[in-house]
Amino acid sequence: MNLRFVFQQLGLLLIVLSVTLVGIGLWALLPLGLGDGSRYSGATSMFVAALVGCVSGSVLYFGAKRNGAGSTFFGRREALLLVAMSWMVGAALSALPLFFWAWEFGDDAGNTTFRSFVNCYFEAMSGLTTTGATVLTNIENLPRSILLWRATTHWLGGIGIVVLFVAVLPSLGVSGKKLFRVEAPGPQPEGVTPHIRDTSRILWYIYIGFTVVEVALLWALTPMGLFDAVCHTFGTLATGGFSTRNASVGGYDSMTADLIIIVFMVLAGANFGLYYQLFRGKFRSVWRDTELRAYLIIIGIAAVIVSGALWSAGVPIVTTAGTAVEPTLAESLRYGTFTTISIQTTTGFCTADFNVWPFIAQATIIALMFIGGCAGSTGGGIKVVRIWIVLKIFFGEIERVFRPSVVRATRLGNTTVDDALKLATVAYVLGIVLLFASGAVVLKMFDPGQSFTTCATASITTLCNVGPGLDNVGAIENYHKFSWESKLVLTLLMALGRLEVFAIIVLFSPRFWRRH
Amino acid sequence: MNLRFVFQQLGLLLIVLSVTLVGIGLWALLPLGLGDGSRYSGATSMFVAALVGCVSGSVLYFGAKRNGAGSTFFGRREALLLVAMSWMVGAALSALPLFFWAWEFGDDAGNTTFRSFVNCYFEAMSGLTTTGATVLTNIENLPRSILLWRATTHWLGGIGIVVLFVAVLPSLGVSGKKLFRVEAPGPQPEGVTPHIRDTSRILWYIYIGFTVVEVALLWALTPMGLFDAVCHTFGTLATGGFSTRNASVGGYDSMTADLIIIVFMVLAGANFGLYYQLFRGKFRSVWRDTELRAYLIIIGIAAVIVSGALWSAGVPIVTTAGTAVEPTLAESLRYGTFTTISIQTTTGFCTADFNVWPFIAQATIIALMFIGGCAGSTGGGIKVVRIWIVLKIFFGEIERVFRPSVVRATRLGNTTVDDALKLATVAYVLGIVLLFASGAVVLKMFDPGQSFTTCATASITTLCNVGPGLDNVGAIENYHKFSWESKLVLTLLMALGRLEVFAIIVLFSPRFWRRH
Repeated sequence: MNLRFVFQQLGLLLIVLSVTLVGIGLWALLPLGLGDGSRYSGATSMFVAALVGCVSGSVLYFGAKRNGAGSTFFGRREALLLVAMSWMVGAALSALPLFFWAWEFGDDAGNTTFRSFVNCYFEAMSGLTTTGATVLTNIENLPRSILLWRATTHWLGGIGIVVLFVAVLPSLGVSGKKLFRVEAPGPQPEGVTPHIRDTSRILWYIYIGFTVVEVALLWALTPMGLFDAVCHTFGTLATGGFSTRNASVGGYDSMTADLIIIVFMVLAGANFGLYYQLFRGKFRSVWRDTELRAYLIIIGIAAVIVSGALWSAGVPIVTTAGTAVEPTLAESLRYGTFTTISIQTTTGFCTADFNVWPFIAQATIIALMFIGGCAGSTGGGIKVVRIWIVLKIFFGEIERVFRPSVVRATRLGNTTVDDALKLATVAYVLGIVLLFASGAVVLKMFDPGQSFTTCATASITTLCNVGPGLDNVGAIENYHKFSWESKLVLTLLMALGRLEVFAIIVLFSPRFWRRH
Repeated sequence: MNLRFVFQQLGLLLIVLSVTLVGIGLWALLPLGLGDGSRYSGATSMFVAALVGCVSGSVLYFGAKRNGAGSTFFGRREALLLVAMSWMVGAALSALPLFFWAWEFGDDAGNTTFRSFVNCYFEAMSGLTTTGATVLTNIENLPRSILLWRATTHWLGGIGIVVLFVAVLPSLGVSGKKLFRVEAPGPQPEGVTPHIRDTSRILWYIYIGFTVVEVALLWALTPMGLFDAVCHTFGTLATGGFSTRNASVGGYDSMTADLIIIVFMVLAGANFGLYYQLFRGKFRSVWRDTELRAYLIIIGIAAVIVSGALWSAGVPIVTTAGTAVEPTLAESLRYGTFTTISIQTTTGFCTADFNVWPFIAQATIIALMFIGGCAGSTGGGIKVVRIWIVLKIFFGEIERVFRPSVVRATRLGNTTVDDALKLATVAYVLGIVLLFASGAVVLKMFDPGQSFTTCATASITTLCNVGPGLDNVGAIENYHKFSWESKLVLTLLMALGRLEVFAIIVLFSPRFWRRH
């Protein structure tokens, strides 16, 4: 294991995060009308955290560099370790400004939730993993710089995951190439690094492009100001879900805002590899993409079921802002579709309190949490392509029982899913289900006072990086009520889900650490 | 598809069941002190049902035989269809005596539950699938002949499943030979029929041997009379769970009865193929059997967890008879172990109301429901051997992420689990989880008044052929409260679980019915 190189890269990550923190701190100090009354408190917290990050980052980076010629060997094990550590250590640094702020200035705002580092770590991990679950009981009394930092962790975590799964891991041969690539982009060079750089740069362009467009639309067409537009755009494209309002997107009560966010949530939940293909002019392969079609079909069917349930129930729809809306067809479609897409893309923005929705709507929502977005998107969950493969395997197994001699290849677009990938996929899905169940049981053991529904939906919603669940972790609730042990479990579930389990779980395998 | 041969065999089954019914009817008429006051009502019901069974069975058998030379071709598809139809049609005939009795004599006993044929069908399927879930609110006011018939459906269903999975299906090459055979018994003859007959006969001897021993022990050493001893023995060896008392086994409050039933539940939940091996003198291969060891270890660990939870909770243990018992170490072990073994073997006899037990005990119990007994036992559930294979696959997948070149064969005793069986196993386990979840959702939709805990545990406990669940289907509750739609769903779940899903599910596949 080339630990030195891993540490060096981690140091670099800390430095980059610190620079971002400094940027936000400086912005907070600007007298542009963008900051707010408590701008100094926020800025100070950013600078202190940045200092800590910079110093520790530099120690890691230069310390690791000095001690030797510096091998840059970077294999699977190094990649996995770096990925896991990035999120773990990144969350620790991202939690610092919240922690400092709460201790130095929290009293003024009457907001002391972040005086517990576990709470800060939970919030930061929720941000970086683009989950969007919060421990805050009142978001609106935080300084804007802190709110922007929360949104920024989403944005960074989102692009991080896309680059990782579309460019880095497949190039290293980790985690099922075929799941993340639409098609092989021609013969591949032996040294993968230039290719990774290329792909990553284009993915960044696409991500930034989407960001600019969504900010502009939200700012121009909705009641959101520029600041709120930026924060919600970060939350949308990362399929995160942190809002600047206690009532989430429902706080604006704007049909236009709902529609714009719906469109960008759908875009963010699709494979970014497809946009890369579009960028390279391959329209046809995008149009024919099996996963994209399945994804859109699932969204459509689920939206009809959820909206239909709301409509036929005839009970007023309660928005997150507390308003009761008559369940006309239009309003049912509006709230049903927004919630469906917000959950399936694992964003977690809320406009209505689905805690009081009919059972069939809730069951659909929970099923969507498991399914999640597409592979290579910023969305979490099992991923549509895996669901597709598993369904194909089920049908294959059923036929195999009475026709053992018939061999049908499982096709995915132009490629064939080989036996190893089939086994890996089914095992992955079963593993997610088991992790969900274990998480629910452990949460209930640490917090016997919470209902099993609360614990079970908290488990799945964090594991699949959604955010809201049902009952006490519902759309208008938060995670403050859990014990610190449970919060650590939830943090672990977020990381497990975000890094597709293996990157975290291998760390617990003794063989992973053994010298070759 | 050789439908004629399938119908012929079904006719034979109906005739055999009718003969059994006549036997029970005659016994009920005997003035041996074994019958009871309402002996004529029970006997009449048996005879009427037997008449219907005999006539329809004969029509099927001779009708199918007459029309042609009578091909006896019996392939996979025929086997699967016969298996599925046997339980479906068998349950229909088994439901008849209950139905007749309720209409003709139910008023006298104040017991009209069986006036609904769905209730009768539910009860009969619960019997034949050795589930043990009942719709009866008061068992004790039924005539003894009806009670004996309920127990007999268990006993017949139990041996049916063992013969099917140990002798018939493996010989036909259906459903993963390796899962059910300890080792290949030497070179196998081409024509499998003599071998099936041989194995089946020995399995019958073993089953009858166990039955005689348990009846003798229960009769001699416990407060049960001969009648109760017979009924409970049938329920034990089939891992069924129908009792003759409303308070189930807890109604006798006999430590000796608990112990005897514990021993025979453990025996019934183990692979009957092993007893066949013992019969042939192969002690070593039994001792070394991986699944048997895993099964005993799981029982041991689970019993310690459940008993420990009861002991440490310090709350009186409420028996099914309503008595509150001080949770001393001895009593905790007694009730904890009995419940653990009753649930894991999927028997479902109850001595205590685990609805009010600590969460960790309940979570363990639910996990045991999923695991179930050994392959080739009368127990239901996923089966220990599949759990074992899945765990091996998980560890293999984790290692494969960072060491893709290492290939480790998954071994099970002396044989290697090949890739196809691996995929089939993980897919099966995932399929059970999905069926459980779908079942829970459908039940909740048909019965919105029931809690989700009730629906979810009803789904898993019927799918895994256990019997009792939690909340409104708990140890001292019954299934009477469900709507008829839900009862049909539960009946389907029992059949799916008992026949290991595929035999039922292939019937819904258009390709299954297509001509070759």
